[in-house]
Amino acid sequence: MRLDFSVAVHSLLYLEQKQPRLVSSRELAVSMATNPVMIRNILSVLHKQHYIRGIVGKNGGYQLDRRLIDINVGELYDLTIPPAISYARFTTGSPSAVGDGSDINRNIEETLTDLFTLADQGYRAFYHQFTMADLKQDIEHHGYFKAIARKPFG
Amino acid sequence: MRLDFSVAVHSLLYLEQKQPRLVSSRELAVSMATNPVMIRNILSVLHKQHYIRGIVGKNGGYQLDRRLIDINVGELYDLTIPPAISYARFTTGSPSAVGDGSDINRNIEETLTDLFTLADQGYRAFYHQFTMADLKQDIEHHGYFKAIARKPFG
Repeated sequence: MRLDFSVAVHSLLYLEQKQPRLVSSRELAVSMATNPVMIRNILSVLHKQHYIRGIVGKNGGYQLDRRLIDINVGELYDLTIPPAISYARFTTGSPSAVGDGSDINRNIEETLTDLFTLADQGYRAFYHQFTMADLKQDIEHHGYFKAIARKPFG
Repeated sequence: MRLDFSVAVHSLLYLEQKQPRLVSSRELAVSMATNPVMIRNILSVLHKQHYIRGIVGKNGGYQLDRRLIDINVGELYDLTIPPAISYARFTTGSPSAVGDGSDINRNIEETLTDLFTLADQGYRAFYHQFTMADLKQDIEHHGYFKAIARKPFG
């Protein structure tokens, strides 16, 4: 879900701002006014992939485990919003069609799946242009993304 | 919804295959094994935008009103799946935030909205590369899209 990506981005920026202090998932949930269970699930994914490190215990919490410039926004997008495994529910046609218009019916799912897959690859390539340091730049100086984003197919 | 786009594509290809014969919405619904109300709604949009023309009456039905090569796939995508008006429900933060991490909270919604908007513009630009004649090519000779799609940001 797209909100997962936003929460991951927000968490990493918050941890960076507070470092080297340890930040609890509760503090992040309060700061984002978001469901603590959702935050914990996302932190767990970020922890497993070594974006953040966690210290257990009474005064425990999380810290960044990479520099923002070493975190690719596209990788974070792919991690929190995995590519669709199948587009079957978004396409028409049936591979076993017979009769009227059956060549369209037999082939349209494969054609639309290719089209959607190529479009999604391009979509994800967009995010891979940036690191979290770029994102922080845009937070601090809004308009940065609009200025540096390359035109696709330009 | 993405399925609307697929149904529009399928309908136009089917009408093209049957021309100059008139095709009823019921025939299209049967061919696609899809909800007739949904088909009629999409045909109505295509009719209003002069992609197809309709003849009323007992033996009435629809016909293509443009050649496939004059129908841009991206325009059809934008028509059936309009761009998001707001990304607010996909972002964190609040513009009126005060206290801890408030600069992130105040600014992240605008930054993520820019990021999502630019990504979506690139996504749509992908579809605008093609006409319905390209799509028909891929139906007939599968792999055509994969061969001609340009790499974004390349």
